[in-house]
Amino acid sequence: MTIRTPMIETPRGCFISFEGIDGAGKSTHIEPLAQWLRERGQTVVVTREPGGTPLAEALRSMVLHDAMDTLTEALLVFAARRDHLLRVIVPALDRGAVVLCDRFTDASFAYQGAGRGLSDDMLTQLEHWVQSVPDTPGDPARATGGAASEPKAASEAQRWIEPDLTLWFDITPEQAAERLARARTPDRFEAETLGFFERVRLGYARRAQAAAGRIVRVDAAQPPELVWHQVTEAVASRWPLPSGRCK
Amino acid sequence: MTIRTPMIETPRGCFISFEGIDGAGKSTHIEPLAQWLRERGQTVVVTREPGGTPLAEALRSMVLHDAMDTLTEALLVFAARRDHLLRVIVPALDRGAVVLCDRFTDASFAYQGAGRGLSDDMLTQLEHWVQSVPDTPGDPARATGGAASEPKAASEAQRWIEPDLTLWFDITPEQAAERLARARTPDRFEAETLGFFERVRLGYARRAQAAAGRIVRVDAAQPPELVWHQVTEAVASRWPLPSGRCK
Repeated sequence: MTIRTPMIETPRGCFISFEGIDGAGKSTHIEPLAQWLRERGQTVVVTREPGGTPLAEALRSMVLHDAMDTLTEALLVFAARRDHLLRVIVPALDRGAVVLCDRFTDASFAYQGAGRGLSDDMLTQLEHWVQSVPDTPGDPARATGGAASEPKAASEAQRWIEPDLTLWFDITPEQAAERLARARTPDRFEAETLGFFERVRLGYARRAQAAAGRIVRVDAAQPPELVWHQVTEAVASRWPLPSGRCK
Repeated sequence: MTIRTPMIETPRGCFISFEGIDGAGKSTHIEPLAQWLRERGQTVVVTREPGGTPLAEALRSMVLHDAMDTLTEALLVFAARRDHLLRVIVPALDRGAVVLCDRFTDASFAYQGAGRGLSDDMLTQLEHWVQSVPDTPGDPARATGGAASEPKAASEAQRWIEPDLTLWFDITPEQAAERLARARTPDRFEAETLGFFERVRLGYARRAQAAAGRIVRVDAAQPPELVWHQVTEAVASRWPLPSGRCK
């Protein structure tokens, strides 16, 4: 499915997402990268999906622990994403911050799509709806208010939000499972089979191929210090720091 | 937007939804109708939207009380609807029951659409996704299981579920507001303006015009005993009772 997206303006800040199957080790590199960026003068917001707002965290808890069909799961994940975008990510980008987000829409294509079989058409449509946000910086109440007494004008200007850079922590399901077994009690996703994670990994690989300019593969099977080197290289090669704003 | 829906088979039971703006008095007629149908030999399931399952009731609480933008709200309402359909409505219809549901998708077109300005295209797409359910009666685990290790086949047979009859309790916003003022503390929807409810009412009117064979207008401004007469007339004229199954 091809969808035309009206491009009004890009936000001023910089949006970096972290992707990969459970156990790839992405989460452990986010806070060090935030610190590394702060030391170079950036304002950094660290967040995660599903989650990042009270509403989205409540939805996360349902998605990780309650049984539900795949379409229900996808609708909840994208609802959480919408709330997170409007309340946290877009305002942070509009302030010029670097947003580091543990998972974003690529994870929906990998998990709900490749992993559970939801169609790319559905996911592409949801992505288009949710990541087209009202072009009203500085007035979040207009986008998120509870009692919207006046309907939106259909012609209201929209802008498209997606990560500027995605770090895909790639590892085999076998290696990831070995790490997870030592680490924590599995949730509804982490309890899945190796076959499921193999499909998820292939889903990430397809997304990376389709968006090669945005998604950078990180070899997450390497020792932590070499993974860290790949992460900082990817960021620094795109935005030489310190040089003020990342964009 | 026109969407082709593969029609495999209709469920055996009978699906009746109750619609109308807040304060129209629809909720007070559901339990008496359930009793009336039981006295005529029907098995009846009374439920409501958003809600009807533990997951959907938790989503209802968010939608009624938490501030959020209209798209987030619509995604949550349709996620709740999907869970409710798969776990309660479809199994009940497959058992041959009459399902009486306080609100269904017409309410999304009236509230999120006409009331808050979400496009009919979005709502029609969500309706199509959520009300196309796997044609696997007797195997709800396949549709709702937590750990779906195998993706669904894209060719899996689907069937289309919608109400067989919708009773639209029509009343002016002024009359409804007068009733509500005496009745209860308003939630996030009930606290809306008269202008909002006028738009919602017009949204229902448009749906009723577009689906005249399914949606029956009930004049809800009349005294309760005359409203009750309209309700039982609408049901009995469609399915003469007692005569066994309603379909």
